[in-house]
Amino acid sequence: MSYTNFPSKLLENAVAEFSKLPGIGRKTALRLVLHLLNQPKEDVHLFGASITQLRDEIKHCNSCYNISDTSLCDICANPKRDHETICVVESIRDVMSIERTQQFNGIYHVLGGIISPMDGIGPSDLKIEPLIQKVSEGKAKEIILALSTTMEGDTTNFYLFKKMSKFNVPITTIARGVSIGDELEYTDEITLGRSILHRTPFNQNL
Amino acid sequence: MSYTNFPSKLLENAVAEFSKLPGIGRKTALRLVLHLLNQPKEDVHLFGASITQLRDEIKHCNSCYNISDTSLCDICANPKRDHETICVVESIRDVMSIERTQQFNGIYHVLGGIISPMDGIGPSDLKIEPLIQKVSEGKAKEIILALSTTMEGDTTNFYLFKKMSKFNVPITTIARGVSIGDELEYTDEITLGRSILHRTPFNQNL
Repeated sequence: MSYTNFPSKLLENAVAEFSKLPGIGRKTALRLVLHLLNQPKEDVHLFGASITQLRDEIKHCNSCYNISDTSLCDICANPKRDHETICVVESIRDVMSIERTQQFNGIYHVLGGIISPMDGIGPSDLKIEPLIQKVSEGKAKEIILALSTTMEGDTTNFYLFKKMSKFNVPITTIARGVSIGDELEYTDEITLGRSILHRTPFNQNL
Repeated sequence: MSYTNFPSKLLENAVAEFSKLPGIGRKTALRLVLHLLNQPKEDVHLFGASITQLRDEIKHCNSCYNISDTSLCDICANPKRDHETICVVESIRDVMSIERTQQFNGIYHVLGGIISPMDGIGPSDLKIEPLIQKVSEGKAKEIILALSTTMEGDTTNFYLFKKMSKFNVPITTIARGVSIGDELEYTDEITLGRSILHRTPFNQNL
């Protein structure tokens, strides 16, 4: 049988492209491509253009390295925000998550990743130098480290701490503890242990 | 805070396009888009082009209505296949599934969907007329209905049967029964009941 898999080279090509995306296998890729095939031509063109245009025209904020359409992002350009409290995050997704909490009024510094020797990502691949620069120029009165609680996140935290500790700026990390709504019984030991060590004064307003 | 959600209109746009895909939510869409943002420009252009090119240049086989790069698909153009045994399926995905079994040497007829009043899909939206045409011209010695075992599939089966029964061509459906590897205990009652009703002579070669 000559017909082993795909009846069309174009189809096979599109499916191959889609299955390069993270978490998308061949089967899902085929489902997505066949869905797009059933859409009006203009919609499919809009789809294709949206991603190539993004890739071609994307800018990063000159100050915090967040994704932005302008040379200074909305947060960095906002005079109402506290420009001396800098929250260090891994990626734009973390910025969006923290913004959604509406609990932070400072600015961000997006590293663009975390130190991960396994993936070949060292300090020089990240936006660490500009952060040290800001701190050394006395532009910060607090640095909040908000990286993932993984080995890579801890390594990066430690590296940043070592680099910045000489500048005499308070360095904090976001609180680790039992999640709101979680039962103690089902909380892992390390988290529960940390939440006891880092207990805070009782505050009836929270 | 003016910064409510996305820091970039381009990003928001791309995420919106991706989340139109079936089974892709806003969160997954953002993950996919950020992944593409980290790829080389040429790769992203190839990605965009693969889908627009597919949509613009896709053809359907003039005989079986399967997706094809040529006016007659590889299966219909293959003289070694049995052109008188026609397997009626819903979509190209089913063609690919059946081809993978390597158990079928006939040709296909792709309806392009099934009758589903809830989704506004009636017989006239499907490639039913050309099938009836083929059968009425005496081009088939067996019609195999291989549609899903859903209410819509059964409705379509019934409709096709009614339309074709007068032509005196044997009409079969694929066997329904206990899946290979399944334990009887966990098989649902309807499937198990059917597999008893439609029992077949014992064949030690299978």
